[in-house]
Amino acid sequence: AVSALAEEMHYADLAHAYQEIEEDKHELFLKTIGPEKAADMIVELPDTMIEEALDAFSPSELKVLFHELSDDDRVDILQDVGDEARLRFLGLLGPEDEELTRSLLKYEHDTAGGRMTTRIGRIFDNQTVKQAIEMLRRGQESTETLSRIFVVDQKGRLLGKLRFRDLAFNTWDTPVRDIMREIGPERVLATADQEEAANMLLKYDLIALPVIDEFDHLLGIVTHDDAMEILQEESTEDIEKIAGIGGEQSEETYLNTSILNQFRRRAGWLTGLAFVSLLSGYVMMRFGSILSQVFLLSLFLPMVVAAGGNTGGQASTMVIRAMSLGEISPGSAGEVAWKELRTGFFLGLLLGTCMALFTVLLLPFFHLPMPPGMSLAKVGVAIAIALTTQVTSATFLGSLLPLGARAVNLDPAVVSAPAIAAIVDVSGMVIYFTVARAILGL
Amino acid sequence: AVSALAEEMHYADLAHAYQEIEEDKHELFLKTIGPEKAADMIVELPDTMIEEALDAFSPSELKVLFHELSDDDRVDILQDVGDEARLRFLGLLGPEDEELTRSLLKYEHDTAGGRMTTRIGRIFDNQTVKQAIEMLRRGQESTETLSRIFVVDQKGRLLGKLRFRDLAFNTWDTPVRDIMREIGPERVLATADQEEAANMLLKYDLIALPVIDEFDHLLGIVTHDDAMEILQEESTEDIEKIAGIGGEQSEETYLNTSILNQFRRRAGWLTGLAFVSLLSGYVMMRFGSILSQVFLLSLFLPMVVAAGGNTGGQASTMVIRAMSLGEISPGSAGEVAWKELRTGFFLGLLLGTCMALFTVLLLPFFHLPMPPGMSLAKVGVAIAIALTTQVTSATFLGSLLPLGARAVNLDPAVVSAPAIAAIVDVSGMVIYFTVARAILGL
Ligand SMILES: [Mg+2]
Ligand SMILES: [Mg+2]
Ligand SMILES: [Mg+2]
Ligand SMILES: [Mg+2]
Ligand SMILES: [Mg+2]
Ligand SMILES: [Mg+2]
Ligand SMILES: [Mg+2]
Ligand SMILES: [Mg+2]
Ligand SMILES: [Mg+2]
Ligand SMILES: [Mg+2]
Ligand SMILES: [Mg+2]
Ligand SMILES: [Mg+2]
Ligand SMILES: [Mg+2]
Repeated sequence: AVSALAEEMHYADLAHAYQEIEEDKHELFLKTIGPEKAADMIVELPDTMIEEALDAFSPSELKVLFHELSDDDRVDILQDVGDEARLRFLGLLGPEDEELTRSLLKYEHDTAGGRMTTRIGRIFDNQTVKQAIEMLRRGQESTETLSRIFVVDQKGRLLGKLRFRDLAFNTWDTPVRDIMREIGPERVLATADQEEAANMLLKYDLIALPVIDEFDHLLGIVTHDDAMEILQEESTEDIEKIAGIGGEQSEETYLNTSILNQFRRRAGWLTGLAFVSLLSGYVMMRFGSILSQVFLLSLFLPMVVAAGGNTGGQASTMVIRAMSLGEISPGSAGEVAWKELRTGFFLGLLLGTCMALFTVLLLPFFHLPMPPGMSLAKVGVAIAIALTTQVTSATFLGSLLPLGARAVNLDPAVVSAPAIAAIVDVSGMVIYFTVARAILGL
Repeated sequence: AVSALAEEMHYADLAHAYQEIEEDKHELFLKTIGPEKAADMIVELPDTMIEEALDAFSPSELKVLFHELSDDDRVDILQDVGDEARLRFLGLLGPEDEELTRSLLKYEHDTAGGRMTTRIGRIFDNQTVKQAIEMLRRGQESTETLSRIFVVDQKGRLLGKLRFRDLAFNTWDTPVRDIMREIGPERVLATADQEEAANMLLKYDLIALPVIDEFDHLLGIVTHDDAMEILQEESTEDIEKIAGIGGEQSEETYLNTSILNQFRRRAGWLTGLAFVSLLSGYVMMRFGSILSQVFLLSLFLPMVVAAGGNTGGQASTMVIRAMSLGEISPGSAGEVAWKELRTGFFLGLLLGTCMALFTVLLLPFFHLPMPPGMSLAKVGVAIAIALTTQVTSATFLGSLLPLGARAVNLDPAVVSAPAIAAIVDVSGMVIYFTVARAILGL
């Protein structure tokens, strides 16, 4: 009964169920669904659970399992297990599969080559429709998708593509060359980053993106489902990095990730930034006498400082996301900086005006003690100038740092919002005390 | 020459080029590529540019253009233009297209129904392969994709699906019923949120997700390319909301968005949070005498406060992303909170220990002035306790707020990191001064 139920379940749901049950039931679960059904399910598991799952099967069952996998998934799994296991598993593949797998293992796992499947519908430009259908029929068992069929010349160079219906709805003697559509820029080098490949599938609305070598030989395709996964992974990576969460992204779901793992990924930035914050504290300590002369200045200090962090974080996030979406080329750094400088200035002016008005119009009702020679008007002016300066510079800095990161070949998303906040906390303190001292004559 | 070049360009690249050229050249650009080629390109433009682009064409050209569009894109475009233009354009459609378009316009634009195409490969379960191919051939002109073909019963209820090759590689008398594959949970109601549909395409690795009504009638499909766009949009939305950037997401690229627009989307949170920060300032003002008694306390104040914002932001970001990925069900709120409470406690303990050690081991070398009866050891203990309390509570709060937002039917991502920072800035000040006063006897 369990087996019949499993037979009907989608592998994605099976993988979900597998992660929900207790660990000591894993082996029974796998044995019940059998190696054929387990193959696709295991691909969906978090990396850390894969080797354990494979170990539930005997060598002969593993042969079935690995044969069932598409080539890109097989490579993916082999990259997730230990070196010893990888060699053992490679030995279980037939000679043809083994050679193919070894050649695919040469590509980095996060490149187009590392994500491609080579089991594609491939026909020749000098074939007729009839010959092409015959060739596809012979290869159909091992072909991952025939939704897009690719046309190559005798040397295997990519020429064009067509849909299955283009073959089915044309007469048998039609030359393939006459009905194929040419392929423009929508192709990618095997060594390109997986994100580039995924962005191309997104931009050109593709089911399958051809992967080529530098001589335009068709090596394989990256399919729509893998592209979607890549984009989700990359978005999650950006979101986490921006929030100051470091380290390798866990493939496990949030609830399945251990506390130790959560702790590790967050502790790094937190500790580092804590020490940066001591600089803010140092500035505050040095200027402490000003605060004790005019207590009212304490009221605005946290606000001026925080406004810089908030607006700097907004700016860096905007720029980082735009870079991930391919909207900002390296050449437009100047344009970005100029745009953010102006946006920051207007935001600072807005906040400064709000707070100056608050100081002059509302604070008088609170009858706060003021030292002689001081007036709320003066304080209002000081706050407005400090805020405008702080927000403008923080916004400017927030936009520049991701651009700078890329200039030195770092992921722009390493510029986390907390890091920007920590930096502009320091500059905010300096700006605030300097302006207050100058305007109020302290 | 320009026209020949345009003929070869992909519509996505044309749309990019269109946005790069000056506005007064737009009309010439559109006339050059003509209404057929312009159709797909206009779909890719930002919403705000669509009406102007359509206005470049005469009514008869618009007829061609609208006929060229797939039904979901036509609806999408009509939703982006003004009411007057929508009625005018609807009048240009043939009676059949007009009826279809009007019925699709009833779905909200961000639902599965609003994103579906109805031009799908649809065959009956009681057909043979020959009859099915014949039916598909007759409808092929208007079919968006035949990569997945859906099987319905006489009443139009969804039964199964197959690939084109299943038809092509079987004998003509094979009953469709015998070769179709059943469809399990991978279907979506027309009224479901587009994000639910996209997540299903992602989870089940689909090219096309069937959209049904409550009686299981097949209405249309959401295709892989639209799903990918939806996921990217939703990720961008989350990223921006988390950073405290509000308002409708702009469809325009970063560089094409005006400064005024940037200003508007960021000013809201910034201004609101600035006033929240005044509360922090108020606490600081009230406890100001403590700072002037022990200047050293200023050194750690910004750090304790900032650590809460950083860790609270990390926690909320983790939880928000996990919720977007469907990893946290409403029932597991307790589990999440308990997990973050412990993670927060250990992070706080780590930071507290670091800072206590710093105080006791390194600060003596700086010979800072200390009031009588005060010792660095005491200060170290106070910092450690304050930090642990602040980080634990901030992490806990950061995880709870997104869960709470969803409980009251808000998007969890409205809980922006700056908002959490502003809140825990206040609590951090209170915690810090309270602990310092108690431990140091001030
Ligand atoms: Mg993996
Ligand atoms: Mg791989
Ligand atoms: Mg697209
Ligand atoms: Mg794949
Ligand atoms: Mg990456
Ligand atoms: Mg990235
Ligand atoms: Mg802060
Ligand atoms: Mg639109
Ligand atoms: Mg729509
Ligand atoms: Mg998938
Ligand atoms: Mg579409
Ligand atoms: Mg949404
Ligand atoms: Mg969302």
